Amino acid sequence: MVSPAITPIIGILGLGVAGIILAGILKKSKGEGVPVSISEKIQRGAMVFMRREFMLISLVSVIIGALIYFFQKPEYAGQQTIAFFLGCIASSVAGFIGMYTATRANIRTTIAARDSGTAAALKIAFSGGSVMGLTVAAMGLIGLGGLFYAFNKNIHVAEIMEGFAMGASVVALFYRVGGGIFTKAADVGADLVGKVEAGIPEDDPRNPGVIADNVGDNVGDVAGMGSDIFESYCGAQIATIAIAASLATRAGAEVFEKFGVSGPEAIPTLMYLPLLLTTVGIVCSILGILLVNMMAAKEPAKALRYGTMGSAILYIIAAFGVCSMLSLSFNIAYCILCGAVSGIIIGTVTEYYTGGKPIRDLAAQGETGVATIMISGLSLGLKSVAIPLLTIAATVYISFEFANLYGVGLAAVGMLGTVGITMAIDAYGPIADNAGGIAEMSHMGEETRKITDGLDAVGNTTAAIGKGFAIGAAGLAALALITAFIQKAHIDSFDFTDQSTLRTFFVGLFIGGVVPFLNGAITMDAVGKAAFDMINEIRRQFREIPGLLEGKAEPDSDKCVDIATAAATKRMMMPAILAVGTPIAVGFGFKATGAGAIALTGTLCGALLGCILLALMMSNAGGAWDNAKKYVEEGHHGGKNSEIHKGCVVGDTVGDPFKDTSGPSMNILINVMAIVSLVIAPLL
Amino acid sequence: MVSPAITPIIGILGLGVAGIILAGILKKSKGEGVPVSISEKIQRGAMVFMRREFMLISLVSVIIGALIYFFQKPEYAGQQTIAFFLGCIASSVAGFIGMYTATRANIRTTIAARDSGTAAALKIAFSGGSVMGLTVAAMGLIGLGGLFYAFNKNIHVAEIMEGFAMGASVVALFYRVGGGIFTKAADVGADLVGKVEAGIPEDDPRNPGVIADNVGDNVGDVAGMGSDIFESYCGAQIATIAIAASLATRAGAEVFEKFGVSGPEAIPTLMYLPLLLTTVGIVCSILGILLVNMMAAKEPAKALRYGTMGSAILYIIAAFGVCSMLSLSFNIAYCILCGAVSGIIIGTVTEYYTGGKPIRDLAAQGETGVATIMISGLSLGLKSVAIPLLTIAATVYISFEFANLYGVGLAAVGMLGTVGITMAIDAYGPIADNAGGIAEMSHMGEETRKITDGLDAVGNTTAAIGKGFAIGAAGLAALALITAFIQKAHIDSFDFTDQSTLRTFFVGLFIGGVVPFLNGAITMDAVGKAAFDMINEIRRQFREIPGLLEGKAEPDSDKCVDIATAAATKRMMMPAILAVGTPIAVGFGFKATGAGAIALTGTLCGALLGCILLALMMSNAGGAWDNAKKYVEEGHHGGKNSEIHKGCVVGDTVGDPFKDTSGPSMNILINVMAIVSLVIAPLL
Repeated sequence: MVSPAITPIIGILGLGVAGIILAGILKKSKGEGVPVSISEKIQRGAMVFMRREFMLISLVSVIIGALIYFFQKPEYAGQQTIAFFLGCIASSVAGFIGMYTATRANIRTTIAARDSGTAAALKIAFSGGSVMGLTVAAMGLIGLGGLFYAFNKNIHVAEIMEGFAMGASVVALFYRVGGGIFTKAADVGADLVGKVEAGIPEDDPRNPGVIADNVGDNVGDVAGMGSDIFESYCGAQIATIAIAASLATRAGAEVFEKFGVSGPEAIPTLMYLPLLLTTVGIVCSILGILLVNMMAAKEPAKALRYGTMGSAILYIIAAFGVCSMLSLSFNIAYCILCGAVSGIIIGTVTEYYTGGKPIRDLAAQGETGVATIMISGLSLGLKSVAIPLLTIAATVYISFEFANLYGVGLAAVGMLGTVGITMAIDAYGPIADNAGGIAEMSHMGEETRKITDGLDAVGNTTAAIGKGFAIGAAGLAALALITAFIQKAHIDSFDFTDQSTLRTFFVGLFIGGVVPFLNGAITMDAVGKAAFDMINEIRRQFREIPGLLEGKAEPDSDKCVDIATAAATKRMMMPAILAVGTPIAVGFGFKATGAGAIALTGTLCGALLGCILLALMMSNAGGAWDNAKKYVEEGHHGGKNSEIHKGCVVGDTVGDPFKDTSGPSMNILINVMAIVSLVIAPLL
Repeated sequence: MVSPAITPIIGILGLGVAGIILAGILKKSKGEGVPVSISEKIQRGAMVFMRREFMLISLVSVIIGALIYFFQKPEYAGQQTIAFFLGCIASSVAGFIGMYTATRANIRTTIAARDSGTAAALKIAFSGGSVMGLTVAAMGLIGLGGLFYAFNKNIHVAEIMEGFAMGASVVALFYRVGGGIFTKAADVGADLVGKVEAGIPEDDPRNPGVIADNVGDNVGDVAGMGSDIFESYCGAQIATIAIAASLATRAGAEVFEKFGVSGPEAIPTLMYLPLLLTTVGIVCSILGILLVNMMAAKEPAKALRYGTMGSAILYIIAAFGVCSMLSLSFNIAYCILCGAVSGIIIGTVTEYYTGGKPIRDLAAQGETGVATIMISGLSLGLKSVAIPLLTIAATVYISFEFANLYGVGLAAVGMLGTVGITMAIDAYGPIADNAGGIAEMSHMGEETRKITDGLDAVGNTTAAIGKGFAIGAAGLAALALITAFIQKAHIDSFDFTDQSTLRTFFVGLFIGGVVPFLNGAITMDAVGKAAFDMINEIRRQFREIPGLLEGKAEPDSDKCVDIATAAATKRMMMPAILAVGTPIAVGFGFKATGAGAIALTGTLCGALLGCILLALMMSNAGGAWDNAKKYVEEGHHGGKNSEIHKGCVVGDTVGDPFKDTSGPSMNILINVMAIVSLVIAPLL
């Protein structure tokens, strides 16, 4: 067996690579004058959000940590609590580094676009994304690998590591849901008062909400997305480890045969395997990042695609290598292949529904009015769930054939193995978007704006793939966690032919189904209410700051950031309570009837299904409306300011909370529910 | 034990009462001249639709009947096939009588409104609804009661009766889904070309689509709703009978103790009990209908409410009486109480979300534009699912405590027992609506129109309750059918601790979850495409018929009805295939792996959850948009033609296919899937 020390070591090396890339970015020119001051405001705003969230996270995590410490089984309560705090810290650090980098890379991308053209600008934006991607992967390897190294002789190593995943989930809840509310509140608020009421253009520096809007891009799409992926990444690995640990009591000889091992003595290897695979994965990601940088000068869109595909292929080959090195059956590698392929399928379907013929058809619906754009968009969202869901179903079926439930966990690891580069491409998008905003605000002219718009467009396509990936991975990770929960809850008679079990399961299923729908409603309302707070503040500034509209006075941007932060922080408590509280309430509520685990299983099944369905439906409908609007803006169906364009703007406004707040919050919701259930399983 | 002959006899008597009421309606004056010719056109149009659907149903039912005959277990294939055809016929006859009555009551309601005022008009409209309600209940009692009487000595009586439920389901699929597409295609088509393009008012006789629009109200809300309720009504009873039948092999002494009986020798009584309860239910409904007629002169809204509540209370009391007469435990009656109460809760919640403070808030959202109306409406729909779902969960939990799974079936019977009057109130709505349309088209003046509008408004409130009732009942009936399926599929080792079972279940769950989302997309698209066909036809007539716009020539209304019928018939095939095909494909597809029943269980769980959630979400969002529009039209927020009104019109247009096509089709979808599964269970 390979020494488990290798995982945290490679993790630290990965962090080092990220550091080198970051140093390279910081060396680039950030220009001077207006753009710098704008960029500094964005940096400051981002830090206001991070600080506020961090304080809240500290408070909440101390409470949750104390609950774990006092109520968890005493055999490992202490270590699990420590792991929980480490998970919180690791996710926060990853988010902080990502935000720090993104808010420095944006201005440098703008300057590079102005001074050196597309290739140089792309390189900086992508490097910024790479720092985020590698940090996410590296923090996972350092945290999970370190814990495994420290506790791999402890029979409760899986339980201890679950604490880490729970920490990551709690932080993700704050960054993703809070960030999602922040970003859309700022966006809607700035647009509504600025464009509609004051009649000034988008991204105009006179608008007090514009900085908050730009901060929002970083908060939602960098920190939020990063913590989301980090959570799935940790969840997938820990679920696989937990399933491997449960093999000791549950597996017969025919199961071990599937893995190509002789028996239970191979369990330590099987437990380490997911970590080893992600360790290999970060190396493949780094190679992919190099490939992008080499190709960037020629064709930007191709560079990103080749980099992603290249590292995925490399990763699959490496998985076969690992199997061969450890004398494991290739069945293991087939599971990795299965997960990677299904990630690509889901991503491609997402790209199709949010960028292909469907959005052209959607725009064409505008000929008969706003209502038909709405109906068609909703219908598009509803039907877009089919292939991804069936792909996940097929992945579960096939990977199980190869390596039972352990294989399902591995498929999730396969989908998430090259997180270093997929996340890099996700984070590239908001950096390019911000760069465009800075160019606009500092009046850099058509030429620069055209380059940044081009970068943004490239990012949109690849980001769609990334989004599909994120949902698929979250779903598969959650599924693996749920199966780990079922295995662990020691449900000795989970037998549907027992009527009472059946009843309890259905009751749980209905409760679970309500959760994502309620979460969708709460997050959508939260955006509306938070936007309302923003609108009032922006209106106040236009009213009370003399000379603001004439460009003679500075707006108080910090105040707007503050308002959005406060609103986001306040409004994310309900979703957080729903996510953490539901499994606890159901589990312990039904414990008295002796069926806590069964009811909770039903709840998790209902919530899993609802979350994946709504996440896909909302993200895809939102993305389609957004891109239909852009398609019309390119000059189709009468172009900008035509009736059809106005219809598409309505679609886009509805789609905003769909795709950037409610939809993504579903990924977190189900993973938090699953990991909380796994942690409380021994107590039920 | 009471003789089972009583059920079909009371059924025939119920049909007799319906006949007497119908004769009473036909005796009323139908006026002369223009209104009569309009009403005759509506009658003719309705018959065109019925005839076409009937031909298609005949074809499809012969195919399905042949499949049952040749592939079902030979012990009862013949009888089940006959029962299937009887189910098709019973549902079709109920639909035909309902449509016949509604299209005759509408004109007479108009004339009564003109000549004698509100009370007289209400009585006719409600009598029309009563004929439909009583016919639905009576056909159920005659069909199910007759079959039970004929085969109660046959050990396969439950299986034979399942054929009847399947027949009812297949017909419901055609009337409800086809009717839903027809009604919205006609509505949208007539409005768009008439109001928007030709600039003539709503319900203007020059518009070729107006008759089709009025036909649509009957087709969707009378025949469609009737067949939907009929299906749930039969499904609930048969599920309970099937569960009772399975007690012989599955129940221990403690279960029989719950029912207050000594052992398996009471099974025949338990099997007959749901039929006996619905037999009592029709009597309670008739008494409730009498109460409404007595009170109608004073306060119309109160009359409808007192009638419904009165018969529900009577029914609950009667249930205790039945228990006491048959020396059964009151546990049985508590289940009935439980179902009735939960129906009332769900209905009240529906009323709240589509009529209370939420719709005033929704209209207020219009201040910030169309997009916020859309977002708030969707959010309202999402959150409106919570209480109904939790109510269903509680109903399942509590009724199981009283009488195990048999109790869950009884709760569904409890919810549906007074179908005679709840359905009467549902069917009252479209009759009042049609009466208004006829008044408008024949220019009867303000006064008459005001009365019919008042009747319509009363109907809307009570119809909301009815709609919630229908969804709750469909959900509970489907759940009972699914549990009956699980009991019957002889899944000897449905054990979640077996990893392979768990895997197969999840794969099934994902497939099942896709079905309602796909059905939603297909039905919404179908409305759009069918409306497009209508639009083209109406445009053609305006273009090609000289003097049409000047009122000098008659439009070819029949042609429009024909187009809408053809479009509806064609576009409903996909949802039908999805509903019937999915359980067959999953069941037999996984049969080779030995896990057909387990996979299908997963699929049914996923589809059940998705169907109830989407049905509630879509119906409530659609209802809320509709009523927000009406609220603005009453003069709030600037009244008709204000910007906010325009926003609400967009909401209403999106809500139309939500609440009248896609939402209601979910009820049918899950019940068809459940009954098909139950029928094929022995073959898996």
